[in-house]
This record gives sequence, C-alpha cells and structure tokens, in this order.
Amino acid sequence: MIGAQALVGTLTGCGVDVCFSNPGTSEMHVVAALDAVPGVRGVLCLFEGTATGAADGYGRMTGRPAAVLLHLGPGLANGLANLHNARRARTPLLAVVGDHATYHKQFDAPLESDIDAVARSVSAWVGRPARGADVATAAANAVAAAMAPPGGVATLILPADVSWSDGAEPVSALPVPPPGPVPDEVVGSAAAVLRSGEPCVILLGGAGMRRPGLEAASRAAQATGARMLGETFPPRHERGAGLPAIDRLAYPAEIAIAQLGDVRHLILAGARAPVSFFAYPGKPSSLVPDGCQVHQLAGAGDDVCGALAALADLTAPDAKPVPQQPGRPALPDGDLTAESAADVIGALLPEGAIVADEANTSGLWLPEATAGAPAHDWLTLTGGAIGLGLPLAAGAAIASPGRSVLAVEADGSAMYTISALWTHAREGLDITTIIFSNQAYALLGMELDRVGAAGAGGTARSLLELSQPSLDFVALARGMGVPASRADTAAEFAGQLRRAMAEPGPHLIEAIVPALGQRPSRGATGPGL
Amino acid sequence: MIGAQALVGTLTGCGVDVCFSNPGTSEMHVVAALDAVPGVRGVLCLFEGTATGAADGYGRMTGRPAAVLLHLGPGLANGLANLHNARRARTPLLAVVGDHATYHKQFDAPLESDIDAVARSVSAWVGRPARGADVATAAANAVAAAMAPPGGVATLILPADVSWSDGAEPVSALPVPPPGPVPDEVVGSAAAVLRSGEPCVILLGGAGMRRPGLEAASRAAQATGARMLGETFPPRHERGAGLPAIDRLAYPAEIAIAQLGDVRHLILAGARAPVSFFAYPGKPSSLVPDGCQVHQLAGAGDDVCGALAALADLTAPDAKPVPQQPGRPALPDGDLTAESAADVIGALLPEGAIVADEANTSGLWLPEATAGAPAHDWLTLTGGAIGLGLPLAAGAAIASPGRSVLAVEADGSAMYTISALWTHAREGLDITTIIFSNQAYALLGMELDRVGAAGAGGTARSLLELSQPSLDFVALARGMGVPASRADTAAEFAGQLRRAMAEPGPHLIEAIVPALGQRPSRGATGPGL
Repeated sequence: MIGAQALVGTLTGCGVDVCFSNPGTSEMHVVAALDAVPGVRGVLCLFEGTATGAADGYGRMTGRPAAVLLHLGPGLANGLANLHNARRARTPLLAVVGDHATYHKQFDAPLESDIDAVARSVSAWVGRPARGADVATAAANAVAAAMAPPGGVATLILPADVSWSDGAEPVSALPVPPPGPVPDEVVGSAAAVLRSGEPCVILLGGAGMRRPGLEAASRAAQATGARMLGETFPPRHERGAGLPAIDRLAYPAEIAIAQLGDVRHLILAGARAPVSFFAYPGKPSSLVPDGCQVHQLAGAGDDVCGALAALADLTAPDAKPVPQQPGRPALPDGDLTAESAADVIGALLPEGAIVADEANTSGLWLPEATAGAPAHDWLTLTGGAIGLGLPLAAGAAIASPGRSVLAVEADGSAMYTISALWTHAREGLDITTIIFSNQAYALLGMELDRVGAAGAGGTARSLLELSQPSLDFVALARGMGVPASRADTAAEFAGQLRRAMAEPGPHLIEAIVPALGQRPSRGATGPGL
Repeated sequence: MIGAQALVGTLTGCGVDVCFSNPGTSEMHVVAALDAVPGVRGVLCLFEGTATGAADGYGRMTGRPAAVLLHLGPGLANGLANLHNARRARTPLLAVVGDHATYHKQFDAPLESDIDAVARSVSAWVGRPARGADVATAAANAVAAAMAPPGGVATLILPADVSWSDGAEPVSALPVPPPGPVPDEVVGSAAAVLRSGEPCVILLGGAGMRRPGLEAASRAAQATGARMLGETFPPRHERGAGLPAIDRLAYPAEIAIAQLGDVRHLILAGARAPVSFFAYPGKPSSLVPDGCQVHQLAGAGDDVCGALAALADLTAPDAKPVPQQPGRPALPDGDLTAESAADVIGALLPEGAIVADEANTSGLWLPEATAGAPAHDWLTLTGGAIGLGLPLAAGAAIASPGRSVLAVEADGSAMYTISALWTHAREGLDITTIIFSNQAYALLGMELDRVGAAGAGGTARSLLELSQPSLDFVALARGMGVPASRADTAAEFAGQLRRAMAEPGPHLIEAIVPALGQRPSRGATGPGL
C-alpha cells in the first residue's frame, strides 16, 4: 500500500480514530486513504485553528490523541495558536502536516516555508519520514510521543511523494510508558511539611484536577489543616456536587497573592509554582510569597494522583474526602449581566456537562455559580491564546457523545475561530454556545490601566471597542447553520438556554451583557482571564 | 519618553502611518502611545491574519510598509500565513510583536513561546531591542530592512518592559538603497538573445508587472518577435485599456507548459524561472521546457524596470508599446456562472479599480473578461496561503482612498479570515466583496484527481464539500455590519454590483455559481489557483 494508507492504518491501530482536517493538494492522498482504510473519522474544519483546538478538546476528554491534517507551512501556521494552547494543556495530539514532495522542495514553490522550525515551537516531537516505507514507523513513534506522560503535540511532516509512494505497511502501536512514579521519600517529605503545623497550600494542576487527585488532596488537607488551591488554567477540572471543591488561583496577580496569603509551604501536585500571567511595572513575576517554601510532590509527567493518594494515606489514613454539597443558584430575574447569566447557567447546568470556558471577564462569576451544580468538566484556556473555546467545544463533543457541551465565550475571543460554528452544525454536535456580548475587549480595558499605560486617549480606547459596528452573533450563527437567539433579560436567557440544551444539535445564544466595570457587581474573584 | 512612544515617533518619521492592530496586554503601551504621539492611524482587526493581510495590501499599493501590532507568539502565529504571502509578494511590512518583559520570560508564563524562531520563518529581518533606549534605532533599522529592495517582512519583537521604559527618543529614518542596477553587459546579452531569431519569452514578475516594465517589455517584444508572459501570481499587476496586455502563466502546470511551448530562451525580468505550484506524480517540477535556456535580466531586488527600459532602448529604440484596446464584454443575461459573473465584472469594472483576487477556480474567466476594462490594479495570492483576499482588500482600500476596491473571493478561502468584513465596515471602506459561492473546495476536487489519489470515495469527497450546511454569506456579512445581497442570475448580479459600487462603504454580494466542472464552459486557461 502507499504511505498515506499505511499512515491511516497505523493510526487506527494506535487508537487514533478522529482526524480534524483542513487539507490541501499535498494531503490529497491522505484524504483518499480515509476511504481506502476505514477506521478514522474525518471532520472537516473551515480553518486550521478549529482543527487544532478541536483536537485539543478531544484529547483532554479522552486522553488519546486526535489527528489534525494541515496543509504545509501556512496550514500549520493557522493552527499554531491552538497548538500552543494544547502544548500548555499537555494534551496528546498528532499534527500531520503535508509538505511538498521531497524532490520539489528545492524549487522553492510559492507555498514552501520552514515547517520544521515552526513545528518545533509547539511540539514535543517532530518527525519527517523520507520514504513511503518509513511512514508507519514514524506515525507510531509520533503517537507514542504524543501520549508519553505528560502528553504533548507530536508533528509528523509528510512530504507528498512519501505519502503517495508504494511499499508501505502499517505497524502496531508502541508501548506508552506510565507516568513517573513518585519516590516514597518525596511523599514522606511532603507529609512532614503538612504535619509541621505551618500554613500549607496544596496546589493542584493537570491530572490533579481530576476526581482521584482532588479526593486524595481533600483527605490530606482536611486531616492536616492545609488548604487546596487549583492552578489558574487547568486543562480539565472535574467539579460540582459530590466532588471536592477547590478554588483556582485568580488570573489577576494581586488577587492570587491574596489567595495565597501567609502560606509558608506550597506543595505542588501537577501544578507549577505560580507566576503572574503578564509582567506589570513594579510587580513581582513570581507569585510565591516571601518566606514560602516550594515543595514539588509531583511534576506534570509524574503520577500526580498516585502521589496524592500516597500522601493522603500517610497523613490521613482514615479521612474521607469532603464533597461539595449540591446547590444551585435561584433562577434570577431582571437584567441580564455576566453575573445573572452565571446564575442561570448554574441553575440549569445538566449532569455530566462539559464547559469549554473562554468567557474571560464575563466568566468571573461562573465558578461560584456552578460550584454545586451536578458533576461536570470544566476546560480552560490553558495557553492564553484566545480563539480556543468554540473549537475546544467541538472536540469535546465529538469525544463525549451523549454529554451536553456548553461553550461560554467572550465576543472578542469568539471571532478568532468563529467558523468553528459551521463544524458544530456540520457534525450535529450537542453544543450550546453562549456569547457574552459586551462589545469590547473588556480585559484589555482593564489591562490598559493595570500596566500603567497612562495617557491612553480616544485612539487607544477605540482599539479596545468592538462596537461600530456591533457584531450580530445571531446572524453569524445562522449564516453557518446554527440556530441562534438573542437574550436581553435574565428570564429570556434562561428560557433560551433551557430550550437549547433540550434540543439536539448546536445552538447559540447571544447574551447581551455590560462589560466589566460598567455596572456594580458583588465582587468577583474567580480566575477569569 | 518611553520606548513605545519612541517607536511611534520613529515610525511616523519613517513614513509608517498605519498600524493594523490586534493587541493584547503586553502591547498596551504601544496602543497608548498612538494617542500620545500622533501620526499613526490605528486600524483594529478582529484576527491577526486580517492585520497582516491588510498590511500586505497596503504595502503593495503604496510601496511603503504599514505596521501590524501583534500579541506575543500566538498573535504572530495567527498572522503568519498572510506574512508568508507578504514574503512571497516581497511587500515591505513591519510586524511589531509584543513580548513578555525581559525579566518575566524566565518564568515561562502561559503565553511564552519561541517568537524569534517563528518570526524568522517569514522575515527578512528580526530584531529585539533590549532597552527602551534601543527601541527607536531598532524601529528605524526594521523599516529600512522592510524597504530594502526587493522589500520584505521586518519583525520587531518588543518586550513589555522595553516598551514601558523611559529614556527613549525617536530617531530619523535611515536611507533605503535603490534597487540594484543591472550591468550593461547583462542587458546586452539579453538583447543578443532577443535578436537571435530563436523563440524567446520575456517572463515578467514583481515590479515588471507595473506600467513602466510592461511598456518597456512591450517595445522590446514587438521589435524582436519575442512573447511576453507574466508570472502566475504577481503582487500587483497594472492592466487594462491603455496598458500592454500580458497573459500570466497558468496555475495548472500542463497549461503553463503549453503556454511556454517551444520557447528556446526565457528572459527573466523580476520573475523566477517557472516551477510547478505542487509536485504531481510523474510530472516535472521545473516548467522550463527541455532545450530552453534561462537568462536572468533582473532579479527581484534589481532595477527591473530600468533593465527592461535599457533592453528596449537597445533592441527597439523607436518602437512604441502596444496598448490594450478598450473593450468590455456585453452584460450577460441568463444563468449566473463563474463565466457570466466574470463578464459582468468586466462590463462594470470602474476606472482605477483595485481587484484583490482570491477567486481561485471561480476566477478562471476574470483575466480575459477584464482585459480591456479601464486601467486597474490586480493583486494576487502570491504565496498560496488562502485567507488573504478580504484582508488584502482592506489594506488596499486604506492605501488608496477614492479608488474602488473589488474583492473577488472563493467561498472556502473567504472563511479563513471572514472577520475582515468587520474591519471593512468599521473603517467604512469602499470595498465590494463578491463571494463565488459554489459550496465546495472546488480546486481540491480537481487536485484529488490530478495527484492520482485513486480510490477517493465518499469520505474523501465529503471533506471537499462546503454544503451541509450551506454557508449564508449574506447573513455573515450583515452580522459584521456589511450590507449584503445574493445573486442567482446574471442580471441580478449586474444590478447588485452596480449598486454596490455606486454606494460608499463596503458591500458583499454572494454570487451563487456552480463549481468548476459542474457545467460546460468555454474553456478557461487563466491562472486561477
């Protein structure tokens, strides 16, 4: 068989069964191989950032890589920002990037560019098979590299002639090593710290934000008086009623510093030592308080949940985790604001929902309002590259049939990958997209002041406004085949959300809300962005 | 003043007066400096690919760089595909990419990535000032590098603390060297070749596709019996009534080979020796016919028009250029097809129009139908990275107030940077966007067969279809504040185009056309994509 067919056959054997695709001429043999070698579902995306963001969502929910199929250097470029987010999420992901035929590259045709250099900026593994016969081994290596703990992006660059060359055969999946075991003495030291009586925080991240990690940490915390905190932007946070509750570190550094308070020991379990998202004049970059010692229990590639379980067994052998009690906000009435919208979402969020959160400033109230909702997954913007939410929701929905997916999305961020809505419709995905329409890059309005950019006048402010003209997301959604409605009051929003989640297939609700700071609020401290 | 203010002040002095912007927190001081230091117009784009594509259009029309303002590595990534097109167009362009504060980078905050490596893949110059006092010199160097013949992308990476540091002052523009003079003996050799009596083609590209180059080449060609051809995807082709007519080499290699025919000498004037856009099994990469000698008269960085003028003076001292006679197609009636739409455009194209062409397969008939229209500029997809057309039109319109801009756009390509329509509306630009809606990646349907990807069945074909659901471009345009209409017949299209061009501000027309091959045509041989 040809290289492209051996690729698809190998991927099938490695458990890669979805390929988010935006192909071009140099990938046509791979496209054709999807018919010749069944087992991989091709999902068409109208922009590469949708493909890569969807593969991120898929990998976060399944723990297995989806493939993306991209067209040469520019295709990789368009998918790169969401590969950056996937890299930060440590999502297993296989990027297949077509390239010119090996003998054609020397001619520097218009689409020629340095794919390898760009790929290396986001990839844990980059490979380029030189012959058709090498494709299958390269593909198996790529999948194994993507899945090797903690997970990452593997980029397989596939020249067109390698793809169409004969003499290739699929190979079997390679073994994937388990997460690194954490030595007993490391667990023992952490236990000693917890027992010291000094103020301790267990900072959870990565796999630590899933049920086993949270429950173990909850046991250790309640027995020793330590506090638990979560990293600001976890890839996948299991939360809601029945799971241990945990606050995430806030995005604004000043609030995160207050959350850490007078902690003397920070025990890292799958999280990194906290740093400010951006630098601000005169403010520290590290958020570790003065005089606080940092202890790494488990790094991202380690067996985070195993280490936490061992720590709990040492410090709290008889303790049970403290579950969040069920509880929902009352359905609000009156004005629709980011705050009342959060209450509506908290009141209606179904059991087993998956929330793809790119609501930014409008999302500040969501964690609190949904804390006691039935158990659900929360996916965040791990790498700060906006334009992830709608693609992420697509991938999560394809990974999790039967679960309701909610994309909570800022208007500005939505526009980067708005064509993801078409894929929602094309695939009939059960995604309800909520656009918080405040007609501004509200975060930047806040940041303009925080960075001390004094003297910002009309020109600067106008570059942060999304009005003139207003974006009509109902029209945009309908233009891509997604039923849509607009909500101006809390009651309208509740009715529309209820209907959207009850009906199969995608929906979009444009929630008209004031921008942060335009109206008094009850004082949010959530992570936001 | 601070670094950001010195940047803006220096840019103003260098003639950079527009900044296509999609900023984030690390660029807030630059945003604020647009108020503090007047002279640069900030144009907000909702996606970075719009900013970079618009800067490309601006640079092609003015010969001066516009700036783009991008947010860290992911912002650069999102703008990279259109920077690739700008690189291939040799457009002078200044990319200002904000970065974390110098002291913050070591903390590997979520948005940290290897900006330099990615920037180098598209840039003729990459710089990173280390102190506020260095910003102005770096900016002046960047502009000079962008403008140095033949023109290119200069990327200035600006750390946040360098931007906000005091002690900076603007510097003056640096001298820009003229294009390289072409030695007399090179011109003499080319003249000897032209006089040899053997079949010759003068292949024009870059600056050679502007009026002075075309007129000089026309003189030389008519006096010596040589033929003129243009490169397949010129950055800016001046054409229409009164200018020498020139066919461009076709995109399909087999047609290009037929165009070159039995040529024995290829004289390159601003063009590169022709190569196939992609490799195809069993087909040559180089399109230079066997036994044909290639002679470089002038490279892209040379004085192409000067060399052509010298060549004409040697070979045809008394000859006049042969102008294209005025002539327009009759307004067609009946069905709307890519072919009849081209006739409508040819019948109505106004004097001085600028056409941003990303019509791909639907654009095959445009060159012929518009050949005798009043003089106009034609901008093409130089690097093959689709998603350029709508941004390119925005930049061309901002560069050329008072001229009518036509974006002729394929439906699939339009979706990559569809939010550019919002910038069309925001800035009130006189752009008429024509979407050729054939509901397919029609080019790929053709390429699937041309690359010999046998066995492509339902799955493969479905990945090339844009139906299910259909894209409603009228709704999409209205959602971004652009008045829009749909045309199903040639007469409707003509009426709508006439109205759109008569009214100020942007408009969009969705032209419903069959995909190439779905209906008999009169046999197109234009460049297309």
